[in-house]
Amino acid sequence: MNTRLTFARCGFVLLIAAGTVTAGPTMDEVLAAARPSDWRPLDPENTLYLELPAGRVVMELAPDFAPRHVANIRALARERYFDGLAIVRVQDNYVVQWGDPEGERPVGEARKTLAAEFTRPAAGLEFTLLPDPDAYASQTGFVAGFPAARNQPEGTAWLAHCYGMLGAGRDTDADSGGGTELYVVIGHAPRHLDRNVTLVGRVLQGMALLSAMPRGTGTMGFYEEPEQGTSIRQVRVAADVPLRERTELEVLRTDTQTFEALIESRRNRSDEWFKVPANRIDVCNVPLPVRAASPG
Amino acid sequence: MNTRLTFARCGFVLLIAAGTVTAGPTMDEVLAAARPSDWRPLDPENTLYLELPAGRVVMELAPDFAPRHVANIRALARERYFDGLAIVRVQDNYVVQWGDPEGERPVGEARKTLAAEFTRPAAGLEFTLLPDPDAYASQTGFVAGFPAARNQPEGTAWLAHCYGMLGAGRDTDADSGGGTELYVVIGHAPRHLDRNVTLVGRVLQGMALLSAMPRGTGTMGFYEEPEQGTSIRQVRVAADVPLRERTELEVLRTDTQTFEALIESRRNRSDEWFKVPANRIDVCNVPLPVRAASPG
Repeated sequence: MNTRLTFARCGFVLLIAAGTVTAGPTMDEVLAAARPSDWRPLDPENTLYLELPAGRVVMELAPDFAPRHVANIRALARERYFDGLAIVRVQDNYVVQWGDPEGERPVGEARKTLAAEFTRPAAGLEFTLLPDPDAYASQTGFVAGFPAARNQPEGTAWLAHCYGMLGAGRDTDADSGGGTELYVVIGHAPRHLDRNVTLVGRVLQGMALLSAMPRGTGTMGFYEEPEQGTSIRQVRVAADVPLRERTELEVLRTDTQTFEALIESRRNRSDEWFKVPANRIDVCNVPLPVRAASPG
Repeated sequence: MNTRLTFARCGFVLLIAAGTVTAGPTMDEVLAAARPSDWRPLDPENTLYLELPAGRVVMELAPDFAPRHVANIRALARERYFDGLAIVRVQDNYVVQWGDPEGERPVGEARKTLAAEFTRPAAGLEFTLLPDPDAYASQTGFVAGFPAARNQPEGTAWLAHCYGMLGAGRDTDADSGGGTELYVVIGHAPRHLDRNVTLVGRVLQGMALLSAMPRGTGTMGFYEEPEQGTSIRQVRVAADVPLRERTELEVLRTDTQTFEALIESRRNRSDEWFKVPANRIDVCNVPLPVRAASPG
């Protein structure tokens, strides 16, 4: 940080509500100061690769919240259930979805449907709390790298439908999902889906391969002609992929002081460009940093 | 509404927290019951057409919040300032932006920069309030068809950076914008930009022409090669377009009982699919209905 920048930042602080905001480091500065132990590698058993003609989408699964669905999605991938299926739905400002629209593809050891995992007990989860109000829950924050919410009176917790979250589509019955139909959020967080669908993970890399897909023009963004959908080459559990073909990523731990400093850097942007720091943040606007793993 | 549906809805209510939620009409039912006077036509002087090779994007300008910027954007369009420029930036989960990246194109009677219009006095605005908490402001709601926020102690109001909102890009100086560079939000609402950039309107139709564009791979989503950008055929004020070539739309008034019923229908979804209605909503998740104007 050079002197000129420091000076600019101090001048900036004087311009806003004096005494209420202290210009802290930027997110880049927080990440530059992170220790190696602030980052964690991915567990290959909880990492899914969606292989599209344009490239790979890397997703991390969330067994802490949806253990049965995660196990079933692993089983489906191992049976090559998704291979050759297609992206069937791209609804603007909502979701990209894939699966077998006819529901005819057989599953082997895996299950077509499972009991819902919409919420779980909040007890036992290390919860990094956000201090700010939320439109949908009494508390929001982060658990093991995922955006989450909880209601203290009931003592339940759930994953939050933020941009990039991965969920298991279902029909009207609560227990009609299971992982054969998966969707990713590509628009403003549809938080009204929280506690109504089982979220199973999030996209870590390759999000733009999904979000820039042509929108479907049918009802709810379904493609009207099958040939409009992007075909899925395969879906694999990373543990089943040869080491040299894996995408080795690291994720910033959300139970660290570094992540708390990152949250603060985003609640109060100290970059010179910002004239009125929000002094608040929405759970879905907190970045969850991902980087290439260092070799070795 | 047929009997079976009514029954299903009543059964559904019994399943959730008894006594706290009354199953009301769905949004479709609210809109079906709307009176003609609940809809308003667009003012052609406040309607902008962005003409792209793939079609037209229709935008409504917000002179109540940014009168100087709106007048300047009208002047720029009338000087054909934007014609032949390009979409230069598509940053995933953030914005699509167009303008003259070199800043070399001359402006005639229009201005290159203007004093910021980040906020305005809340007095004098008819504000349809949301009852729910917001991460970024003490109050949120709707003014003349736009999502907005206000802080009562200061008595200021501003437009909210929701999906589809149109803003005037700027450099570091607060007064360095003016409308020559425009952006549209294509991701989760970047509400930290509220009160830091002048919002000038919102997209009413054609959003998917912007949101599905290939993402730029340069810094901040700028395209690395000029030929990657989608060219802009022209930008026109609707009033300057022959009647037969206009896109005639109507927008649901946000100062009506119908709109209040719509908000309630989205706070508590009564569709059978929903098992736990949120009983809350985020200002950026309230739909702002637009329809083709009825002939004549």
